[in-house]
Amino acid sequence: MEDMLLYEGKAKKLFKTDDPEQLRVEYLDQATALNGARKDIVQGKGMLNNQITALIFEQLAQKGMSSHFIKKISKHEQLVRPLAIIPLEVVIRNISAGSFAKRLAFEEGVELAQPILEFYFKEDSLDDPLINDDHVKILEIANEEEIKTIKDEAHKINQLLIEIFREIDLRLVDFKIEFGRCSDGTILLADEITPDTCRLWDFKTNQPLDKDVYRKNLGEIVPVYQEVLTRLEKRFN
Amino acid sequence: MEDMLLYEGKAKKLFKTDDPEQLRVEYLDQATALNGARKDIVQGKGMLNNQITALIFEQLAQKGMSSHFIKKISKHEQLVRPLAIIPLEVVIRNISAGSFAKRLAFEEGVELAQPILEFYFKEDSLDDPLINDDHVKILEIANEEEIKTIKDEAHKINQLLIEIFREIDLRLVDFKIEFGRCSDGTILLADEITPDTCRLWDFKTNQPLDKDVYRKNLGEIVPVYQEVLTRLEKRFN
Repeated sequence: MEDMLLYEGKAKKLFKTDDPEQLRVEYLDQATALNGARKDIVQGKGMLNNQITALIFEQLAQKGMSSHFIKKISKHEQLVRPLAIIPLEVVIRNISAGSFAKRLAFEEGVELAQPILEFYFKEDSLDDPLINDDHVKILEIANEEEIKTIKDEAHKINQLLIEIFREIDLRLVDFKIEFGRCSDGTILLADEITPDTCRLWDFKTNQPLDKDVYRKNLGEIVPVYQEVLTRLEKRFN
Repeated sequence: MEDMLLYEGKAKKLFKTDDPEQLRVEYLDQATALNGARKDIVQGKGMLNNQITALIFEQLAQKGMSSHFIKKISKHEQLVRPLAIIPLEVVIRNISAGSFAKRLAFEEGVELAQPILEFYFKEDSLDDPLINDDHVKILEIANEEEIKTIKDEAHKINQLLIEIFREIDLRLVDFKIEFGRCSDGTILLADEITPDTCRLWDFKTNQPLDKDVYRKNLGEIVPVYQEVLTRLEKRFN
């Protein structure tokens, strides 16, 4: 009997398993941009992202930061804890790039004096608008205390990810994470941490090793994502 | 000799005077929408806004909230203190309307559980984007302490304005204010408080008595602004 499909996103599918405390995530060979308006099949991408995010979640766990990740069960699948996802894209920026630089006419590639945290309301029909803390509260996405937890955790995760990526000669420019609530209300890191959700620049060349290669049509993404995985495996496996 | 023009905005001109501690503001007979893309001459509007904002600044002062306003010197002119304007549009919303409702698909006309404060980066070339506290800091618009002062003052001003408008049977839906720094760094309420910068709905009919009449082509704005001034004068003069 096939597992029941719970959710299909742009880059993965989520299935029930026999164990109510475990869900199965299948990473898809799909790349999207412009909030899904552009979509391509990219053979091998799902496998790469599954392995990359598994390694990163494991490294975060070793550094004391837990997440929904339980274990990788195949090249393109992993088990995760079931969570009620909080509809927020939590973005942290260390170097100016992307929509931040464009929206505020801020010079690109500049190291920011302090990491910038942004909340985007995860709602495709509204194009994931930037929102502030008051919006998060009035939309009943999270209360004051939860907002503080999410911000604190996100900043901690940023510091840990900077360390992890520095060890493989990558600069963490910015990234997007999501959080979910466990049945007891605990807020836990969820979703994925991959070149789809991070901007990663090579320390020496400043070349992007991330989804910008796809967004900006700079070349094939599989070799680029493979490079990130290879560096992670060499260092951490 | 004519006073030196210091600044010309969409709705007013700012001139030097012989006294370095006083500037002269001239309110213009001009209405704009869509960030200035739409512009019309509206005979009498300048006079109305000058008188309305003078009365409101006076009422705020009586309630202990100081501002840059010194005194009205003619029907369309007032004297104000010179300030270095902070390039932030500080918006407070009590009832959902306008861009807030549209952007977040929030039902219009709903009383919000708590007032929502928003910062917009006052920069025409960027279309005054919504920003969060981290952006305010990284753009060096204001530091952490100043952000707190601005928010606290804005919420106080909201409560005072709600009271003032309630006395003339108007519901304060939302409004935009600006602040400036005195030479000693003190942050002071600046700009104007008029139907150009507030959404004001009649308590009984919920009809707008504000710039939405112009934005949405609901009719002539002079009689509407005149109605606001008449109510203020009846109650407070």
